[in-house]
Formats: sequence, C-alpha cells, structure tokens
Amino acid sequence: MDATPRTTLGRKADRGSHDRLAADAILAEALVGHVGLIDATGAPVVLPVAIAPDGDRVLIHGSTGARLFRTLAGGAPACLTVTLLDGLVLARSAFESSMDYRSLVVLGAFIEVVGEDKVRALRVLTDHLTPGRWDALRPMTAKEVAATMVLALPLAEFSVKARTGGTDEPVEDRDWPIWAGQLPVVVGTGTPIREPGVPDDVPGPLAPRALGGPGAL
Amino acid sequence: MDATPRTTLGRKADRGSHDRLAADAILAEALVGHVGLIDATGAPVVLPVAIAPDGDRVLIHGSTGARLFRTLAGGAPACLTVTLLDGLVLARSAFESSMDYRSLVVLGAFIEVVGEDKVRALRVLTDHLTPGRWDALRPMTAKEVAATMVLALPLAEFSVKARTGGTDEPVEDRDWPIWAGQLPVVVGTGTPIREPGVPDDVPGPLAPRALGGPGAL
Repeated sequence: MDATPRTTLGRKADRGSHDRLAADAILAEALVGHVGLIDATGAPVVLPVAIAPDGDRVLIHGSTGARLFRTLAGGAPACLTVTLLDGLVLARSAFESSMDYRSLVVLGAFIEVVGEDKVRALRVLTDHLTPGRWDALRPMTAKEVAATMVLALPLAEFSVKARTGGTDEPVEDRDWPIWAGQLPVVVGTGTPIREPGVPDDVPGPLAPRALGGPGAL
Repeated sequence: MDATPRTTLGRKADRGSHDRLAADAILAEALVGHVGLIDATGAPVVLPVAIAPDGDRVLIHGSTGARLFRTLAGGAPACLTVTLLDGLVLARSAFESSMDYRSLVVLGAFIEVVGEDKVRALRVLTDHLTPGRWDALRPMTAKEVAATMVLALPLAEFSVKARTGGTDEPVEDRDWPIWAGQLPVVVGTGTPIREPGVPDDVPGPLAPRALGGPGAL
C-alpha cells in the first residue's frame, strides 16, 4: 500500500516499507503488541496487549471493564506497534553495533467487534495465541463473551521497518581484535508446568519449540 | 514510591505496584522498550527503542538526525513501556487462558544527556545491551559521539504490572479433558554468526544462553 503523510518514513527509510506481506509476516509471529493512545490528561500512554492478525485487521481483546479498552472502543486515535527482536549485531565499535529487528506501526482507530463476528474473532485470537486449542477448550459461555471486549484495528495506514544482516562496518575497523558478528535472539517455550488437576494420561501441549512461524505455539 | 493520579492502577490493581525493585528487575532483563509520544498531527505514535537502566533513570540512544529523538529531546510528554512475556497460561477455557508477564510504564519527559555524562551513558547502554564489550571495543570517536543522541527518562512517575502463576480456573472447569498449565516463554541466543573478517583464533562472545538476568547477553 502507499504511504500516507503520517506513515512516510524518516531516517533510514531504506529499512522501511509499506509492504503488506512484511506486515503479515510480523503479525504471524508476534503474540504481543504495544498500543499507544492519549490519556485524559493529554499525555501519551503505551500499554502491552495480546494480538492476532485477522485478514485486513489486527485484533486485541480485554475486559469490558478495562479503561484502555473503553477508551479505544470510543474511537480514540491509536497506534499499535509490534516489534520482533531478531538478533544482536556485535560490531567492533559501539557506534556500529546494532540490533536486527522487524517492527510494524499501525495508525488509526480501533472498531469494536460485535455479534457473531465477535465469537469468531475470539476463536481467531485464541488459535493465534495457543494454536489449535479453541475447538478443544471448554466453550465460552454467553456471560464470558459479554464480559470480553474485542477490538479491531484496520491494517490500512501502516509502515514496516526492519534491519537484517551483519555489522556493516567500515573496512578500517576490521582489524580490531574482538569477536564481531550476529547473535540471533531465539524465543521458545520452556518445560511445561502441568496444572495440579490435569491427569497424567491427558496429552500435553505441543512440544517446546521456537515461537514464531506458522503453526508455532 | 507513591502513585500519582496518572499512575494509579485501574482494573486488576492487585497485579500492579509502584515498587522500584520490581521496576529495576524488569529493566535489568529488558533490551527493548516502546516509547509513546504525540506526533505533529496530534496522534499518538509508538516506536521501539533499545534501553538501559542507569540509576534513577532509563537511557535510550539514537541518531541526532532521527525525528523521534529530536522531538523527545524537546521535552515532549512521553511514555516508555517495557514488557517481558514470561509465559503462556493455558486454561481449559479461552476466557481463563492468559499470559504471565511483567510490564513497566514510565511517564514523563526525556532529558538529553550531554558532556562527559554522555560518554558514560553510552558505556552504560553498550554494557547493558552487550555486557562487558565497551572496554574491548574500538573506542568511539568524537564524531560518533556527536552524531549520537542520548536521552534519559527519570524513574519518577511509574507503575509496574505483573501476572505470575497458573491458570486460576473455577473448580468446575477442572474435569474438562484438555491439558492445562503454564508454558514458560524462554528468550535466548542462537548460534553466533561470525563476521567474515574475524580470524578463527579470536574468541567468540559468551556462549549462547538465556537473555535476562545480571551479566547475561
């Protein structure tokens, strides 16, 4: 998609794009984003939220009693930023050291998801955060659905920024006697901690493995 | 410290605190935070930044040419939020499923770090992001220092929120036949990728291990 005046990239524009596939790839991996809005005093506030992609929008959910969700449901201008840290870039100088990352910034206003679409959206959220569990879970009650607010931010006005690769250092630094290269950051799951009530013969969740990528937990 | 009207906790206040030790523990582990500010159009915008704790403040750094840094250096109201995802909480229902996390929200305005304190702050940032490297790196040139902006946000007005532990489900859900429990999220480093110019006999960085905790890379 095209840039808007608000999503035109500034410095290091070569790291940026408005590529929907790049945005989708970030959303496919990420479990958490950060929502920015303006609070009652006029100051910016940023809060973490669980996220899930849903076609041309990004879903979040929370309690109908949460101030954040009530404000966003009222159409407040918002920004949702999703960042994946892919690695540390260790150059021979502090100045050239960096991070490999991918980040998505979406601007706009959230729209409340209601009716049958709300239950479908809750399935999408659940199966993104914990793949494949929705159909096996104890079904949501009407009371639970009513107590949950689902909001959607259209993937309309957005930008993606990313850095990948090695140190990109000046040639004259290459003789400095220190290790240099990339240290990938890996996010995975540790040993599952079974709830006391779970009998031994109930299979566990998917084996611990890296988060990220299709089908990953 | 005490809450201010802006940092008084709303819903699930039992998960929150204004405990400086809890804030410090989050900052000791985290490499990335999200800065919120209000852009020229009056809309909130959220961008990821590398962070480091430095006594009673949090440091960030970037190019003097970056719009974000110029705006923040001008004293714009800002919010820095730092989130660590500790685990997925898999209940027998979607409604009770959750995440274990710790998050720190700091409100205020950044102050530019200048003079000798700026070089010291760059050392603090470098040794937080890549422990122990500052002394071994090719020293920063005056030109590099001049091209870098360092900003500090006082740890004055802040709140911490955290969830830990298991599913906390109603008793009547415990017979539902699905695995339930906690799936810890583990962040670590993968196999280092050596820069082409690095000779074989130069030792590599610290062995891959979990990020987080004192001295960890």
